[in-house]
Amino acid sequence: MVVELFATPEAYARSPALVDPAQARGVPVRWVNEAGLVTLTETVTPQGVIAVCRHLHRRSVGAVLAPPPSLVVVLAGVADPGNAGTVLRTADAAGADVVVFGEGAVDPYNGKCVRASAGSLFHLPVVRGEPAADAVAALRAAGLTVLAADVHGAIDLDEYADAGGLAGRTAWLFGSEAHGLAPELAECADARVRVPIHGRAESLNLAAAAAVCLYASARAHRRPGAPP
Amino acid sequence: MVVELFATPEAYARSPALVDPAQARGVPVRWVNEAGLVTLTETVTPQGVIAVCRHLHRRSVGAVLAPPPSLVVVLAGVADPGNAGTVLRTADAAGADVVVFGEGAVDPYNGKCVRASAGSLFHLPVVRGEPAADAVAALRAAGLTVLAADVHGAIDLDEYADAGGLAGRTAWLFGSEAHGLAPELAECADARVRVPIHGRAESLNLAAAAAVCLYASARAHRRPGAPP
Repeated sequence: MVVELFATPEAYARSPALVDPAQARGVPVRWVNEAGLVTLTETVTPQGVIAVCRHLHRRSVGAVLAPPPSLVVVLAGVADPGNAGTVLRTADAAGADVVVFGEGAVDPYNGKCVRASAGSLFHLPVVRGEPAADAVAALRAAGLTVLAADVHGAIDLDEYADAGGLAGRTAWLFGSEAHGLAPELAECADARVRVPIHGRAESLNLAAAAAVCLYASARAHRRPGAPP
Repeated sequence: MVVELFATPEAYARSPALVDPAQARGVPVRWVNEAGLVTLTETVTPQGVIAVCRHLHRRSVGAVLAPPPSLVVVLAGVADPGNAGTVLRTADAAGADVVVFGEGAVDPYNGKCVRASAGSLFHLPVVRGEPAADAVAALRAAGLTVLAADVHGAIDLDEYADAGGLAGRTAWLFGSEAHGLAPELAECADARVRVPIHGRAESLNLAAAAAVCLYASARAHRRPGAPP
């Protein structure tokens, strides 16, 4: 999916393995100096190599339902690109099969999101722009349990896990950092689950809450009798 | 601990409860306009109220060992203030008793760290500037198990939890985002524990890894037979 590379000679000297394989496959490499690099990037201290890539998203979750996924993340209204990219990275680490950036959520191609994903944007299928309600309906029709992460949810994550609620195929739904999930979306979920707060914090950062939820699912899925 | 407040009339109209209690206790309130506020803050869109506070850290973990804490976080070399503040917020939510910002870690009073902590800086004791090795020695002497979060650790977090390793009083040690824990610190730990990576990500974001570790401890501590 790499169309073109830009690199400084210094970055090439440090990391030829970032450039050589692309060049061997016929990807054009353009040599630039630091000043040129800065004009091409959004960061103050760019890392020296830029890849121009084709878009790689799917338009709807329907494209990735065969075979049915075991663990899916739906970002519905997540606005902060750093949070969204971190959730994408965490979803990858937790073994999720798909991440949906719902309509109205931040763009997965936002530069901060791409960087926060630390490469995970290229590791698993990403759906972009589908209304979250449509994605949820398709996931339920495919047999997944849909769980809304909700700081006011009636069900405690630990209790839900202990009761076996995470054993099956699961889609986790995460809402906006400021306003949570839209009520009509939360109502689509099979359950609203809260990460327990044991101390005095009012809530968790969205990416931290997602890490706790997704790793609880990963753990449940790796117990005997869990889905393939 | 609030010495002085700065507020815009607009912010006061939105949130009088942020200003009135301080004023009632004799804290001077200075009224400023938006332009004045911007010169006082580091953010582009400040929220309208600024509190000048006294420092509130302890100089060593020895000051907070009676009664012995059940869950402690030691940041050893964490450099990103957003990560550190998020870990502080997550530690609070997970019910941790103390967070140590070791010598060489980011300053807990860094503005980004304060904001990312979302108030948790004021919720639990924070130790600032003690060498992490000294804090670890004091925590071990107080009977805590010291666990190093280490992406290359030989022990898988889930297996360690299943084997009962998280049941006792625990201190978690987190190293630098770029370089991990210094070898001499990792060697001080009772175990090096890795958050399992099930997908293709190379690692987790530091704050996400901390969320998974701290919530695993919180869960283990709330099982029957766990420490008070």
